[in-house]
Amino acid sequence: MENNGSKMWNFQGNGELKSAPATTVRGTLTMIMQNLNKHDQRPTIPLGHGDPSVFPCFRTSIAAEDAIVDSVRSGKYNGYSPFVGVLPARRAIADYLSQDLPYNLSLDDVHLTNGCIQAIEVVLTALALSSPGANILLPRPGFPFYETRAACSNLEVRHYDLLPEKGWEVDFEALEEVADENTVAMVIINPGNPCGNVYTSQHMKKIAETARKLGILVIADEVYGHLTFASTPFMPMGTFGSIVPVLTLGSISKRWIVPGWRLGWIVTCDPNGTLKNSGIIESVTDCLCVTSGPPNFIQAAIPQIIENTKEDFFLKIVEILRGTADICFDRLNEIPCITCPSKPEGSMFVMVKLNLSLLDDISDDVDFSLKLAKEESVIVLPGVTVGLKNWLRITFACDHSTLEDGLGRIKAFSQRHAKKT
Amino acid sequence: MENNGSKMWNFQGNGELKSAPATTVRGTLTMIMQNLNKHDQRPTIPLGHGDPSVFPCFRTSIAAEDAIVDSVRSGKYNGYSPFVGVLPARRAIADYLSQDLPYNLSLDDVHLTNGCIQAIEVVLTALALSSPGANILLPRPGFPFYETRAACSNLEVRHYDLLPEKGWEVDFEALEEVADENTVAMVIINPGNPCGNVYTSQHMKKIAETARKLGILVIADEVYGHLTFASTPFMPMGTFGSIVPVLTLGSISKRWIVPGWRLGWIVTCDPNGTLKNSGIIESVTDCLCVTSGPPNFIQAAIPQIIENTKEDFFLKIVEILRGTADICFDRLNEIPCITCPSKPEGSMFVMVKLNLSLLDDISDDVDFSLKLAKEESVIVLPGVTVGLKNWLRITFACDHSTLEDGLGRIKAFSQRHAKKT
Repeated sequence: MENNGSKMWNFQGNGELKSAPATTVRGTLTMIMQNLNKHDQRPTIPLGHGDPSVFPCFRTSIAAEDAIVDSVRSGKYNGYSPFVGVLPARRAIADYLSQDLPYNLSLDDVHLTNGCIQAIEVVLTALALSSPGANILLPRPGFPFYETRAACSNLEVRHYDLLPEKGWEVDFEALEEVADENTVAMVIINPGNPCGNVYTSQHMKKIAETARKLGILVIADEVYGHLTFASTPFMPMGTFGSIVPVLTLGSISKRWIVPGWRLGWIVTCDPNGTLKNSGIIESVTDCLCVTSGPPNFIQAAIPQIIENTKEDFFLKIVEILRGTADICFDRLNEIPCITCPSKPEGSMFVMVKLNLSLLDDISDDVDFSLKLAKEESVIVLPGVTVGLKNWLRITFACDHSTLEDGLGRIKAFSQRHAKKT
Repeated sequence: MENNGSKMWNFQGNGELKSAPATTVRGTLTMIMQNLNKHDQRPTIPLGHGDPSVFPCFRTSIAAEDAIVDSVRSGKYNGYSPFVGVLPARRAIADYLSQDLPYNLSLDDVHLTNGCIQAIEVVLTALALSSPGANILLPRPGFPFYETRAACSNLEVRHYDLLPEKGWEVDFEALEEVADENTVAMVIINPGNPCGNVYTSQHMKKIAETARKLGILVIADEVYGHLTFASTPFMPMGTFGSIVPVLTLGSISKRWIVPGWRLGWIVTCDPNGTLKNSGIIESVTDCLCVTSGPPNFIQAAIPQIIENTKEDFFLKIVEILRGTADICFDRLNEIPCITCPSKPEGSMFVMVKLNLSLLDDISDDVDFSLKLAKEESVIVLPGVTVGLKNWLRITFACDHSTLEDGLGRIKAFSQRHAKKT
């Protein structure tokens, strides 16, 4: 057959890419950063994303670096690894997570992934493949990568609200209303992204009981696990795995401050074996079999990373976050057009509400973020990206002086744009 | 809504997982390894896959290890990276590949991936999304991951034959016959997996001209690039990028003997800018935006890995492969039931034909491989997995003594199962 000339290298398709990144955090932040004023001599202050690794006070543990170096230097981990991950790493993660659970995980419960991003990708693909026509319930506000990946797999999503006036707890009434016979799972993110909340044991038990009643899985995104610094301690959702089967997603990214190392996991917390013959684990394994896992030498370093990182390191990180969360809450409360419904108790973020009626020439949260970038070289994430229009997500995971500087600039910006009364 | 009990954690779907791994190399080898006899005291000899990293003579360059160590120790690459890869790595790969091209690539031509596996995944997903109803042409025999990933994206595949009697060159007549107006791309793998062939400049030019005539892209899988050891030198398909646009897929996996490091690339070789407004590059970028890229510190090590690895290292690797390819060809030719159509000149594999009429109780290539594993603890890949039933793919990428041992066992096995005349 000969080319008729009409189709020469035209890949525009029908004009609508099904997987075109809807709204992602990365995409939004890139767009906002394009609005920075290159002539501003001041440093840009990144309060938009959860990656404090650039600040020296957040440098990862030496033990973690040593583990990678030892692994590379051994020359033993240059080859391919099994597609669910190497055994010692899976065992080490099973043991690590079991410390906080009322039962022991086995290494068979653990599947390694390229960071929590791939864990989300794999779990949603597996659900879509194994349950045609299914839908899942996502929190609003939440982490928009869930929506993006669900769209890639044609998996329907429905939203349930988190209640700002109740410390961002789940609105159970709304949750039960949106669920139907095709609902297969609900996602919770605890410690909360974007809200900085931490769920109590009682609330999580109620989540488990509700999910059980609905006959759905809980997907527990615990990528911010252990990063809590107020009265409510972190408790894994898997604690209630005997009430409802839980798929826990996590990674070393946040607790070890190494998001660029791309080592995450999908863990089955299902002490009663409810999922044994359900097909979902096989579907997860099938998905991992047709994609690329984390580098072998990083996997191989995991036992040493976990074993040799001292408690001191974790305490220091939590201590810094406690301090910066305080600063963040206090400074934001001094700004009239911003309301902070509750002090962050975990993760690296707080959600704050904009009162646009107090501002003169700001049309919405995106406009606020774009102008703030341009005028003050401060990056924040518009709330609409995470599901709440006219809110902002602000991270406090940076060093004290940078945070003070950034919040000061937000205050100056807000005063400059305040409605004259 | 209350659970009616019928759907409690049943994810069996409609019984057919669209993306269930059809036939993958990994899946087949796992199945064959399960047939190993645990009571055999001899070491298992892995002639099934292309990963020689376990053999000390194939240890990666110290310069590559140093680069990773320096990158980790700097503490500068623990954070997130841009989703198409960090600039210095993209620039280094552009420069590295430009050495063999008649024009210079720019860093914008380079997209980093988690090994060549993710490069294949992304390119096929991008083609499926940007060209609904499209089909692509794959070589037979080939690398079955292309078929697997195309199925995941509902991208139709058609096969064109490689001709064993012509050194595994493309059967152009067959190629033009299977192409139609919905064909958007053809894949070539050079140096050849599974055939160990290396295409001449003239043959590649003809591929480019044929693709141009058909109005289709060439996807050039050059993961075995530079691993050639006979009279035909490696020449990148991008050499003919002015005749037809080429997407080159590659990685450091094979040349540096680090398949477990998971660092690959998708590179646009398109000096005329034919693809500029085609939409395909945007589609590739969109796909990379919604998945997880390679670890930042591995990306950051790339310039140093490329710059500091000495020519000696590459020469040594090629020298070993030249020697083991010779051994492989000579020993296999001593086995009556095996025909080796041509001596391997590149990559790490050779395809050999089984003459079942000379064997007593072997029904096909899978049966041969299973019994060989059980009786001799030697792993080879049945040809059916790569598209040719009753052939075998054998790797010679191991050390001399292991290879001699393995080929000796294949000979003993073949003699034991030979038809008595």
